[in-house]
This record gives sequence, structure tokens and C-alpha cells, in this order.
Amino acid sequence: MTAGSATLVELDVFRQQFPALHTKAYFNYGGQGPMATAVLEAMTQAYQHVQQAGPFSGQVNGWITQETALTRQAIAQELGVHAETISLTEDVTVGCNIALWGIDWRLGDHLLLSDCEHPGIVAAAQEVARRFGVEVTTCPLLATLNQGDPVAAIANQLKPSTRLVVLSHILWNTGQVLPLAEIVAACHSYSNVRPVRVLVDAAQSVGVLPLDLNQLAVDFYAFTGHKWWCGPEGVGGLYVRPEARDSLSPTFVGWRSIVSAPQGQPTGWKADGRRYEIATSAFPLLAGLRTAIALHHQFGSSRDRFQRICSLSERLWQRLGTLPHVHCLSTTPPPAGLVAFQLTNQAHADLVRYLEARSILLRTIANPDCVRACVHYLSTEAEIDHLVEAIRAFSPEA
Amino acid sequence: MTAGSATLVELDVFRQQFPALHTKAYFNYGGQGPMATAVLEAMTQAYQHVQQAGPFSGQVNGWITQETALTRQAIAQELGVHAETISLTEDVTVGCNIALWGIDWRLGDHLLLSDCEHPGIVAAAQEVARRFGVEVTTCPLLATLNQGDPVAAIANQLKPSTRLVVLSHILWNTGQVLPLAEIVAACHSYSNVRPVRVLVDAAQSVGVLPLDLNQLAVDFYAFTGHKWWCGPEGVGGLYVRPEARDSLSPTFVGWRSIVSAPQGQPTGWKADGRRYEIATSAFPLLAGLRTAIALHHQFGSSRDRFQRICSLSERLWQRLGTLPHVHCLSTTPPPAGLVAFQLTNQAHADLVRYLEARSILLRTIANPDCVRACVHYLSTEAEIDHLVEAIRAFSPEA
Repeated sequence: MTAGSATLVELDVFRQQFPALHTKAYFNYGGQGPMATAVLEAMTQAYQHVQQAGPFSGQVNGWITQETALTRQAIAQELGVHAETISLTEDVTVGCNIALWGIDWRLGDHLLLSDCEHPGIVAAAQEVARRFGVEVTTCPLLATLNQGDPVAAIANQLKPSTRLVVLSHILWNTGQVLPLAEIVAACHSYSNVRPVRVLVDAAQSVGVLPLDLNQLAVDFYAFTGHKWWCGPEGVGGLYVRPEARDSLSPTFVGWRSIVSAPQGQPTGWKADGRRYEIATSAFPLLAGLRTAIALHHQFGSSRDRFQRICSLSERLWQRLGTLPHVHCLSTTPPPAGLVAFQLTNQAHADLVRYLEARSILLRTIANPDCVRACVHYLSTEAEIDHLVEAIRAFSPEA
Repeated sequence: MTAGSATLVELDVFRQQFPALHTKAYFNYGGQGPMATAVLEAMTQAYQHVQQAGPFSGQVNGWITQETALTRQAIAQELGVHAETISLTEDVTVGCNIALWGIDWRLGDHLLLSDCEHPGIVAAAQEVARRFGVEVTTCPLLATLNQGDPVAAIANQLKPSTRLVVLSHILWNTGQVLPLAEIVAACHSYSNVRPVRVLVDAAQSVGVLPLDLNQLAVDFYAFTGHKWWCGPEGVGGLYVRPEARDSLSPTFVGWRSIVSAPQGQPTGWKADGRRYEIATSAFPLLAGLRTAIALHHQFGSSRDRFQRICSLSERLWQRLGTLPHVHCLSTTPPPAGLVAFQLTNQAHADLVRYLEARSILLRTIANPDCVRACVHYLSTEAEIDHLVEAIRAFSPEA
């Protein structure tokens, strides 16, 4: 399915399932995706089932085992991997924390962080550094948006003490898509006695890029269901490459992490990704995430959806380029759904407030100081044109 | 409101709000409490509000700040403390992990664990021990159910290297209520240069005991909303005593933990309990938990509700005592809502399966090998008598 006109009629019908899209122009998919009515219904039904069959009973315990397994399976299929590599988490940040805290850090080890990571991840890396005497340095990826080579920028900063490289597959601020396979290859080929692992914040890539994690060979890939997948907030996950599992210790743990003896005492970790899961979660939300993922397949393949995203973001980028006081950060059409731009004459926060008052939703980014508009395959050409006209009205030429 | 007959009519009406209670005899409150229809409605409404006003927008961000603040406040009021001492967590186990991992452990430090803790907490303590070279020993509280002094059992095992004592306020297996104020006083008075902190697993006490945490002087009190409070699964919390906050470092962190500079870089932890919160959660569930807590107040004060729980558990304990093949673990009426018993002639798992097939829900415990029935103020005398008769039928005298 492409962005051709025959599709647009179907898209209008398809969009009816998303109440959030009925009354506004939505460009905050990178913050949170809209939830289809069927997603909320699946969750409500799951809540009712738990009450009908439990809430705590042998029957519901079996249902929880099945729901978590089905959800790991549905996620794994999207990422091109086996379900045993997937751990369910509350959000992408928890997934990053699991990888950050699970490495057997030694005094003087080195952690390399890109300069485009989310403040929450930066704070986690800094706290790991403080606790274990790890050195954190930052590598300049922001500057590679329009020139230079991110692979070289990273490879140049590897050293014998480097244990972990932390970066995003799609940079949340500029929208740059990093050449992840090449970066991972550079890190793994640098590995000496102790491997250089790569942790990816996939908040902006899962649900956008067609993915095959085996091919990328990434070690840790943390993601969330509530952004581009349009699932409920509070469900995310972590992929851990089988080769990296035994060297990544669970940190926060509970009954879901362990196997126990008949007398109840813990005897070891679960063999698969469940070792990184903790305890009771909002299990009824899992049916919601699976419903959300299934809906995207109704629209088209991941490749078709990605193509449409790119075609729409190019349209937005092009039209923004015609506005006199707007400067797009990227000098070429965006490689995915994030379009970052600056105003040369007014404060970005004022623009965002002005637009929200007109039911057009996007957000500011602090570093670099800019505005970020996200387009999804659910976006329409009309929405994009409406946004461009509203920015023109906010920031007229004269 | 007491267990008098005038109340029972009202209780029947009150119980109508809980669909899980309509068709079964429920004794698994210690696993998960039933959810009132109004709780699910409050959550559904919150989900719809997020979609209508966002899902990601300035308005919804403000709403999240308000919802989390209101929920910390509602929880704090139940525990007799200020809202700034409360962190929202996914469950009780996460709260325990925050305390376990946040102490500045040094090689050779000592962690004292009671012998009645949940396997998930035992596993977390063991992993902390492995990572930081901490010594874990276990102190015999199980043996103090009917004789002996739990305060002395703990005080006897404190040593100069002891940094943390981990125990439950109400033991999840035997139902014993520990004299927490005395235990905390013993630990704090033992404290030398480095204080002996007390972490409490409050899974079975919050929503049961009338609580005043200031009076108890406990350092860390981890709890969940989905058991005795009857809130949704996936929301719990942690109380950290203000005096202990500065020495408890956040471990898993994210955007909710930090304060940031205008350019986005993290500059420190939030001043209050939010420093232990991580990132995106299922925020719409918070309205559900507040609704659940408010419902209990409609029924009666925490003191009245606790009195009714004790009166009902005494009834169950007494009647179980009349059955020939049943042995109650406690030789005196249970001090709260948990009633643990053993069959002298058949397997406990068989009884639980037999009862679940008859819509009577309770559970086995592995250590000590027993069956656990929980009574809530929502329980009825008729349910209790029905349970006792069903056990008699399963395990007849001849």
C-alpha cells in the first residue's frame, strides 16, 4: 500500500478507529501514538475476564502465562527474532536500565554514549558510572546529521576499556536514522577479550522501520508499545541477543525472573528473556498491544507503511522549506517520520502552544532547540498541509 | 461499622459493586483483590480523556503531573505520611528492589532477611549480595508464630556490618503480624556510624492494618494497590522515610526521576519520592486505584474494617479447628486476614483444585507447606461457612 490516491479513501475509513485523530491534526507519534477503539476494548475485555475467572486463581495464573507468551511472540515477530529473546517491560527506559545495570562493570570500564540520547537515559548512564567507577564519554553524532560519518564518529572513540555503546536507532531530536548494522559491526570487530556491547534506544524506530534484529546483530534493543505501535502506555520490551544473555545479569528481579524449588526457594533465573521481568504488571494491557500490532498489518506490510511514512515526511519537509522563517535541520528529505525544524524569528514553545490551541499537536525539543513533528502512516496529506499553513499564519513573512 | 447484623444487609449491597464476588467464594485477597465496576470505569474514562486531549500534548502532560500527584497524596493519607515520601511503582517487588539496590553497599556489609519472605524478594537480596559482596543471613521468624519473640530473633542477629533488615509486616505464609515498631526501634538503636535500615514488604498489610508509618519509624515500606486495596494490577508504591532518602540512591531511573537544565541535560534528582520513579507508566490506572481507596472509606474507617477482618478470620479459624483433618498453623485467632492451615490426610494442591472447581478460591503456600485463605472486610460469614463445609466434604472424617 503506497501513498497513492486510491489508498486515501481507505485511510479515512481506517483512521475512524482512532478517536484521538477525529478532531485534531496529530504530529506527536514519537511521544505517544493514538489508541484505536479496539485496543481499549481488548483491554476492557481482559480486565473483565480476570474478574470473572479470578482475579487470583489457577485459571487466571494460566491466562497470565499465556498472555505474556503471546505478547512476547507478537513482538518477536515484528522484530524478526525468537520469542525467548524478548522481555516485557513497563517502557523503553526500563529496558535501557536493564541493559545498563546488568553488565558486570569493573572500575575504569568505559561507557560510550551518543550526544543525542534522552535525558532519562543519560541520567541512568551517569548513575551507573558513579556507582561502579565507570567512565562515561559522549560521542558527537548530532554533527553527523548532514555531513560526516556516524560509524567513524563512534569507532574513533572505542578503546580497550569500552564495554558498552549506547545510542538510538533513530535519533529522537533530529530524526537521523543511524546505520546500525555498520555501527554494531564496528563495535563487535573492535571487541577484545571483553566484548563491546551495543544498547539501542529504539523508542523512535520500533513501529517505523522494517526490522530484522538478527541481521543488525545488536546486543540490546529497548522499545515501547505506546509510541509508533499505538499500543497502551505502560507496556514495552527489551530484546537481548542470545549470545549476550548469559553475560547480562538481571538487576531488578521478582517472581517472574526466577525458577524455584518445590519448597519455594529461588534456584536460578528463567532460561529466557523472562529473567529480566520482575513481578505483577498491568497484564490486561497486553491484549491491547497485540490488538494494536495486528491493526497495522491490516493496513499494510511494514515495508509499505515505512514507505508511506517517508513519502509523507518528505512532503512536510519540502513544504516547511518554502516558509520564510522556518529552517529544517536536515538538508535532505527525512529518512523516517521525524521532521525537526527551527523558527528564525520566534520562540518554539510559543509556536507549540499556538498550534495546540488550534488542535495541532507537536512538541519542542530542548537540544538542539527545535520543534519536532512526527508523521505516521496514519497521517494524511491534508493534515500536513494544514500544519504548514498554521505555521505560516503564526509566523508570517512581514 | 462492625460485624453486627445491621451491617450485613449493607454489605450485600456494597458487594454488588464487585463483579468477581457475584459468583464465587473468594479467599485470595492476598493474591489480588476484586475490582469494583467503578474502578474499571474510572480507568476507561481516563483512557478516553488521554485520547481526547492528546494522547501526547501539553494538556495531557499536565494531566499526568496532576494524576500522579493526586495518587501519591491519596496513598500518603492512608499511610499517615506526606505525599513527598511516596514513589509510585509497578508493584510491591519493584519497591523492594528500589530499596535493596539503592543502598551504598560495601564489600562485607550484612543484609538480614527473615525466613518468611517471598521468593522474588529473596532472589533480589541474593543478587544484591552477589554483585556487591554483601553477606545475606536469614533469621528464624517462622518459628515465632506461636512462641518466642520476633524482636529478639532479629536483634540477636544484628552485627556491626548490618546495613539492612528485610521483613514483611504481615508474613505472607503464616499470617503473623510482626511488632514492627519494636523491631524498627531495635534496629535503629543498634545503629552505629552507619544506620541499620529496615525494609518492609507490605504486600499483606497495606489495606488491612490501620497504619501510621511515622509512628513505626520504618525506613522503606513497599506495597501494592492490587491486593487488599482492590485496585488495578500494575500500580504500587514505596514509602521512603525522609531521613533515609538522601542515603538511598535511585537505581533504575528515567525522565520522571530527574530535574533537567533548559538545554535538556539532567542536573540532579527530583527532591521528593519521584526520584525513584522511572518513565512512562499506565497512568490511566491511577484513577482506578484512587477510586478503589475511596470506596473503602464509604464502607468504614480503617479501624472498623480491620476489626471486621479480624472478627471474620477468627470465625474461619475457629470453624476450621472443628474439622478432623485440618490443622491451623496458628494456635490463637489470626491477628489479621490470613488463615493458614494444613490437611493431615491429603495434598494441599488437590484441595485447592477441588475448591476452585466449586468456585471457591484460595491458594497453596510452598513454605511451610499449607493452604492460605484470606478474609477481607468484603468477606461474608456465609462464604466462610461455605468454605468450611466444602473442606469438610473434600476431606471427610471416615
